[in-house]
Amino acid sequence: MQITIRIITPQGQRQLQAVRGESLYSCLTRGGITLDAPCGGHCFCGKCKVQIEPAGTPGEQEAALLTPQEIAQGYRLACGVRVEQPMLVRLAQHQGEAVILAEDTAEQTQPCLRLAWTYAQIPAGTIDEPLGDRECLRQALGVDLVPLSVLKKLPDACRADQGRVSALLEGNRLVDIRPGHKEQPAYGLAVDIGTTTVVAYLVDLLTGRQLQAASMMNPQKSYGDDVISRIDYASESMAAMDTLRDKIVSGINELIGRLCRQQEISEDRIYRAVLVGNTVMIHLLAGVSPLNIARSPFIPAFTGALCMSPQESGLRIAPAACVYTLPNVASYVGADIVASVMASGLDEDDKLTLVVDIGTNGEMVLGNRDRMLACSTAAGPALEGAHISCGMGGVTGAISSVRRLGDEISCGVIGDTAARGLCGSGLVDAVAMLLDAGALDETGRLDPDEGPDGWASRFTCEGRNTIFKLMDGDPAVTLSQKDIREVQLAKGAIAAGIEVLARAYGAQVNDIKRVCLAGGFGNYIDRANACRIGLLPAALLDRIEGIGNGAGAGARMALLSEKEQDRAERLAGKIQYIELSAVKEFQDLFMDKMMFE
Amino acid sequence: MQITIRIITPQGQRQLQAVRGESLYSCLTRGGITLDAPCGGHCFCGKCKVQIEPAGTPGEQEAALLTPQEIAQGYRLACGVRVEQPMLVRLAQHQGEAVILAEDTAEQTQPCLRLAWTYAQIPAGTIDEPLGDRECLRQALGVDLVPLSVLKKLPDACRADQGRVSALLEGNRLVDIRPGHKEQPAYGLAVDIGTTTVVAYLVDLLTGRQLQAASMMNPQKSYGDDVISRIDYASESMAAMDTLRDKIVSGINELIGRLCRQQEISEDRIYRAVLVGNTVMIHLLAGVSPLNIARSPFIPAFTGALCMSPQESGLRIAPAACVYTLPNVASYVGADIVASVMASGLDEDDKLTLVVDIGTNGEMVLGNRDRMLACSTAAGPALEGAHISCGMGGVTGAISSVRRLGDEISCGVIGDTAARGLCGSGLVDAVAMLLDAGALDETGRLDPDEGPDGWASRFTCEGRNTIFKLMDGDPAVTLSQKDIREVQLAKGAIAAGIEVLARAYGAQVNDIKRVCLAGGFGNYIDRANACRIGLLPAALLDRIEGIGNGAGAGARMALLSEKEQDRAERLAGKIQYIELSAVKEFQDLFMDKMMFE
Repeated sequence: MQITIRIITPQGQRQLQAVRGESLYSCLTRGGITLDAPCGGHCFCGKCKVQIEPAGTPGEQEAALLTPQEIAQGYRLACGVRVEQPMLVRLAQHQGEAVILAEDTAEQTQPCLRLAWTYAQIPAGTIDEPLGDRECLRQALGVDLVPLSVLKKLPDACRADQGRVSALLEGNRLVDIRPGHKEQPAYGLAVDIGTTTVVAYLVDLLTGRQLQAASMMNPQKSYGDDVISRIDYASESMAAMDTLRDKIVSGINELIGRLCRQQEISEDRIYRAVLVGNTVMIHLLAGVSPLNIARSPFIPAFTGALCMSPQESGLRIAPAACVYTLPNVASYVGADIVASVMASGLDEDDKLTLVVDIGTNGEMVLGNRDRMLACSTAAGPALEGAHISCGMGGVTGAISSVRRLGDEISCGVIGDTAARGLCGSGLVDAVAMLLDAGALDETGRLDPDEGPDGWASRFTCEGRNTIFKLMDGDPAVTLSQKDIREVQLAKGAIAAGIEVLARAYGAQVNDIKRVCLAGGFGNYIDRANACRIGLLPAALLDRIEGIGNGAGAGARMALLSEKEQDRAERLAGKIQYIELSAVKEFQDLFMDKMMFE
Repeated sequence: MQITIRIITPQGQRQLQAVRGESLYSCLTRGGITLDAPCGGHCFCGKCKVQIEPAGTPGEQEAALLTPQEIAQGYRLACGVRVEQPMLVRLAQHQGEAVILAEDTAEQTQPCLRLAWTYAQIPAGTIDEPLGDRECLRQALGVDLVPLSVLKKLPDACRADQGRVSALLEGNRLVDIRPGHKEQPAYGLAVDIGTTTVVAYLVDLLTGRQLQAASMMNPQKSYGDDVISRIDYASESMAAMDTLRDKIVSGINELIGRLCRQQEISEDRIYRAVLVGNTVMIHLLAGVSPLNIARSPFIPAFTGALCMSPQESGLRIAPAACVYTLPNVASYVGADIVASVMASGLDEDDKLTLVVDIGTNGEMVLGNRDRMLACSTAAGPALEGAHISCGMGGVTGAISSVRRLGDEISCGVIGDTAARGLCGSGLVDAVAMLLDAGALDETGRLDPDEGPDGWASRFTCEGRNTIFKLMDGDPAVTLSQKDIREVQLAKGAIAAGIEVLARAYGAQVNDIKRVCLAGGFGNYIDRANACRIGLLPAALLDRIEGIGNGAGAGARMALLSEKEQDRAERLAGKIQYIELSAVKEFQDLFMDKMMFE
């Protein structure tokens, strides 16, 4: 029986369905909500604390990991809670950081793989015809390639049930063998390696069903927040390069382990993996130096797809599985964008469509089935909350929405907690509000005199830097003239990029029929305010849609279908990359687009 | 300038050519004489002790590792001796064990490989066409497959000399890349994994020249002397199986290291490896269970060839190299026999030829280019000195030849030392002598009364076991009635095997035009005496030739030529295996052939 669980996440509310008696921990992690509990939900570490209603009574072991005050406030360890009735779950402070967008709007792909289980009867070799097990199997199944890891299983598999075996074939290659004629599962893994977050999906390759998502912060983060600082670190030495590789590989292996434990399957049942990420992340995953990506003319070691063995890649899945990455377009338009384009359907549609993924770089593709152009704008991390005086990521304590009510300002804060800072969507709202209130002129200058009278006390000056107080507190959350300049740089770059693509395409911005926003920021942003500040063209407001984690969705499509994998290849080859630094008019457009309307 | 070094080895004399100033250690190991010095010739371990003339004066470090007595007797450490003049080297006791037959009569194969270096100019990606390094290289060279290990080298290789690179291609696969247009070497590795000994050959793949051989005792020996005891051990657990695999892999890696140090080349310049061995050795190398080889109906996990990556096989050679094993015919006719057949030329000749490899099993192939039959006789290890009261291997202290001079018996002893026992060739000589002297009747009974009068004192009895003293000493070297029975079992099995093959072929033994003896025993045996005791058919005496280590020669042929590798495949597929235990007449023939003439 399914029980509904309402979840108040930092980004809003969600619902999940639990099975009666299931642990809340298992239900949340299945839903892609990582609780980052080192003990893996075994009631050791006390890290999976959540506030629930009704709270019930913690068990002895669980109670020992909670303070009496926490218990009084309705806190429980998710791993200690059995779901017996509908409940409301509030995620605490740092759990918010792990709520990573693992959802998307893509439809489920129909599996279309050469990978298939087949039953066979392997005739045993005889004294007169002493063929090896492998040779008998080759004759019986018509397979050619038997990887060493599968060869090792043959003698036992062929003899356990009188020659009856279930064989997993991929064309003329044997991927796995099990004794007996039994229904066998086959799972796949799709991974989106973001610079900041990593999301992994476990998929049933036979039905196409997504079983579970799991996510984590990219463990390379301690070596630099953005791709350039990771490249710098990787370039220090071979050992540094290997460290970054080990970090991401063991991170993904941790996600694999988590997914498999939750689904109670064995890792060697994962027979196919497709990974996407930006070009630098894919280089680091493969252990290939990304050094030249950071140096003009910005040439990566490879742009196309990779095919690796699990051994080569270091991923702990079935040893005869294939590990693929989707192709990149250029140094700053990676496989994640290719995947987002697939998820958006841009490449199969007649309509002129714009796919935008706003992160540290604003990467975008404009086009339709006939022609596609891409560029990457160095938007900077302002819209992710970096380089902003009170900036922070979209986690608990961040102001994520801002509205003016007369002289009052109403701020929405992620999580039921005091505001600690301002995340990207709140920043866009705040700037739009200042514009509408007249306190910000078209050049981006904060002008206390032009704002509502009631706001006068909100303005202060620190030298030549004017500061606007958004919300009282200790410390207060403020927005400075310098912060506004950062926003102008970011939105100017993105808007100019869109304009350059449209012109190169021979179109007007207004000709764009659909704007697909990929990624977390694109999902949570107030679209009207994004248009108000000129981040996106105002004319396109009603054509904007969020596609969620398009990179993950595209990876799953390619995971489930070789046709989709081929599509990624064709698509990446077809996209024409425009390097903005080489476009003469870009600088003028950039200056122009930094202005407000 | 070349200096001649005469070497007294346990098996006789040899000569090697040294370069003036070279260390004696380096000269000996280059010549395939393993001194088993753990320090690798760096004057630490004192294990490479040899007796030389003239002895010269040891250096300080060297002298510290020798006793004054040893120095007085002319002992030196081979690693401390610089060769300045012709010298005579006597190998001490246990070094004899490492003198493994690495030589053969095969002609040098003309290299015929797809593997070839080519020069190319890789156009760099540009801002307008930001193709990855790999994609630029693919276009320039028309290659398709770029292994991950080579991809990692691309960014540097392409930029070190303005895009000029030397690329090693194998068809459409890139095997290595180096910056610049320079002549690049390419080496290959051939290995014969015997149950007792392992021999590795380093070959120049471009010229076909064999550069050096190195050998060692099979490090698996401590887990059992013969294949059956190794299978028993491997069947105990996965860990036991892995131990045997690790032993042989690290053994081969040690040989690779030794070969590369001697030739002053890097291991990652070895781009191709071909390994042979009996079916069990190949299973253990690949880490595949040989369990069913020991159980009727004796079906191995695989009979055909393997193709492994260096990563899979564990061999430390160029990471994009291919590691091949040659195909086996059946559980007891392995890739080593296939290689010996290639070396003998049996499969390309009209003449009816017999190839025999006498070890614990006597494996043999009879046929010509049209048809080939093979069998394996469980000859037992008597001819290797095992199961014989005074038996021993062909090492220092073994009586390797026996002749009668009137009432006297003259014994040749390996090494200038007291006789400790009897090796296979001495055993054959002794039995032949006893037969000729009439002291042994046709049923194999030792009869003191029928021998020369002067021999009376040589006979004693222990219960019902008559004992014949071959040589005085402490203890004396003797041959017992039981020993004779062991020889009868061995020679009966081999002779019956030859007879079965001939009959199955529809031929008379006398129709055989050529007998090729492969392996050490076949090389050192007195052929007339082997015929005298009925081990080999007397009618064929003048058609017997020793081909040396045919297995190693065949492996080198396949290493140097894909045509030869294909030939091994065809040949193995063509050989019809006859399981003697399933041949009705075998038992009768066996009983018959146990008799003497």
